[in-house]
Amino acid sequence: MTHTIALGTGAEFDAIREMVDRWGSRARGIGDDAAVIGVPRGDQLVASVDTAVEDKHFKAEWLTPREISYRAVAAALSDLAAMASRPLGVLVAMVVPERWRDRLPQLADGIAEAVDVAGTTIRGGNLSDGSELSITTTVLGTAFAPLVRDGARAGEHVYVTGRLGAPAAALRLFSSGASPGIYRERFAHPVPRIAEAIWLAERGASAAIDISDGLVADVGHVAAASGVGIELDALRIPRFTDVAVDDALVGAEEYEIVVTSAAEFNSDEFERRFSLPLTRIGTVTSMTNGPVVVHGARVDSVRGYDHFAS
Amino acid sequence: MTHTIALGTGAEFDAIREMVDRWGSRARGIGDDAAVIGVPRGDQLVASVDTAVEDKHFKAEWLTPREISYRAVAAALSDLAAMASRPLGVLVAMVVPERWRDRLPQLADGIAEAVDVAGTTIRGGNLSDGSELSITTTVLGTAFAPLVRDGARAGEHVYVTGRLGAPAAALRLFSSGASPGIYRERFAHPVPRIAEAIWLAERGASAAIDISDGLVADVGHVAAASGVGIELDALRIPRFTDVAVDDALVGAEEYEIVVTSAAEFNSDEFERRFSLPLTRIGTVTSMTNGPVVVHGARVDSVRGYDHFAS
Repeated sequence: MTHTIALGTGAEFDAIREMVDRWGSRARGIGDDAAVIGVPRGDQLVASVDTAVEDKHFKAEWLTPREISYRAVAAALSDLAAMASRPLGVLVAMVVPERWRDRLPQLADGIAEAVDVAGTTIRGGNLSDGSELSITTTVLGTAFAPLVRDGARAGEHVYVTGRLGAPAAALRLFSSGASPGIYRERFAHPVPRIAEAIWLAERGASAAIDISDGLVADVGHVAAASGVGIELDALRIPRFTDVAVDDALVGAEEYEIVVTSAAEFNSDEFERRFSLPLTRIGTVTSMTNGPVVVHGARVDSVRGYDHFAS
Repeated sequence: MTHTIALGTGAEFDAIREMVDRWGSRARGIGDDAAVIGVPRGDQLVASVDTAVEDKHFKAEWLTPREISYRAVAAALSDLAAMASRPLGVLVAMVVPERWRDRLPQLADGIAEAVDVAGTTIRGGNLSDGSELSITTTVLGTAFAPLVRDGARAGEHVYVTGRLGAPAAALRLFSSGASPGIYRERFAHPVPRIAEAIWLAERGASAAIDISDGLVADVGHVAAASGVGIELDALRIPRFTDVAVDDALVGAEEYEIVVTSAAEFNSDEFERRFSLPLTRIGTVTSMTNGPVVVHGARVDSVRGYDHFAS
């Protein structure tokens, strides 16, 4: 259901109107007090919210305005992938300081790019004045049987999509003032693995999470929620070109998907279909040694996980 | 559906855990990547997002931390009232600067109070560091036939709930450094008129909006969306004790509901049921004189509306 765009006057409304014009058919039903969205019969609603704040989650000098908003919205959409949920739409609330106003068109374009990548639309939003740029994205999705964190069982396999470590390598180079080189693209353009997660869910995945805090930390969340242990084989973890094992193990903001599954997946078929590796990296255990045990690497940086072993 | 709360370690997770503990049974399913929410069969999903930013939407010295978060969440819930939608839950994304950290428990309590008032629960959220406090609330609701802005037809009546003008009077007194006196409560504790709006929708309301920009401006949004004119009788507009007509006409952030309706409502029954007046304040026209015409008052402050008449 869509409504006529009927906003009042004033700078805020003008800015919203300009963004909605840029979005074209990607914006649906904007202008009423709330969006009205149909949820497929029998499905459940899946909803999540995520915020990106200037100087906390990104530096304005690292990325273009378009990349900043793309990354914020793509990261939020990744939470739908983690639940194997099909997107129904996003709501984007931005706090935009005066000094950012002239970059609103580029911010709008980055949002458009992110919803395009996920095959969804913009269903609402909010624009506020403030002293620092922040982008809060609410993602709405639908799933008959959402994948959650608490479904992992002892004896199952652990799989991860993609190749890890590039965002951490990029972040380190950005932070030291160097060029992020080949790692820049993976940092600036994370891809929510929505179709991939649905593929895995349909083939028997029992639990899933997206890697936002880092592989070991996020696997720890699955282990804690499921009441199991997880053993990872560091040497099996697929790494982006020339990155350190540590960056692949604990680097945040990967937005790849980790799933557990009793069944073995056909990684070749997955890779042919999505042009992305799917790699078995560990095993679910009955937690004899702790929630997460990493074999084959000494993990030096303790960032949000509970246990390590060399 | 609820999930085990299973968050990792670290200051952010500790803060979230503390808030979730304070919320008790008001928090549902927090801890997974996204909330999973059932939508009643046949109903549509209604979704909206709203942000309150420190020093833009409120001053920290005017309100207690609990009032600040209550007001932010209640204002967002008012958008569900405007659609005659029953709440399914809220997601609250907060940017909380270091200097606000010790007030997180009070911010959590204000959120709890707002969801209690609306008879709903907290289904997710996000906590970020930043330099200014902001609270972005996503409200999710359900309705078989949501009330929208474009349903007003010439010849219908225009009704408003409550008594207007107190928030504008409070704001003026706050801004001048004076005590807001009897107006403080209406400013600090707006009540989303959800049950009231559902009552009006069930009895034939054709369009609705909540008063956030000011009565004349918001009535103008309904007129624009519906392609009609609206004539208001300033002398009929119910006013809070001793407020000026102007404050009732253009004062923002009332969070009362305006509806149009071909049928006449039983205002006595409404008032007995909700302890709140329901007043007929105008008529929908075929827009002969402009989108909004106000009779009986000269409106001096031009704030977001298109036309006035004395």
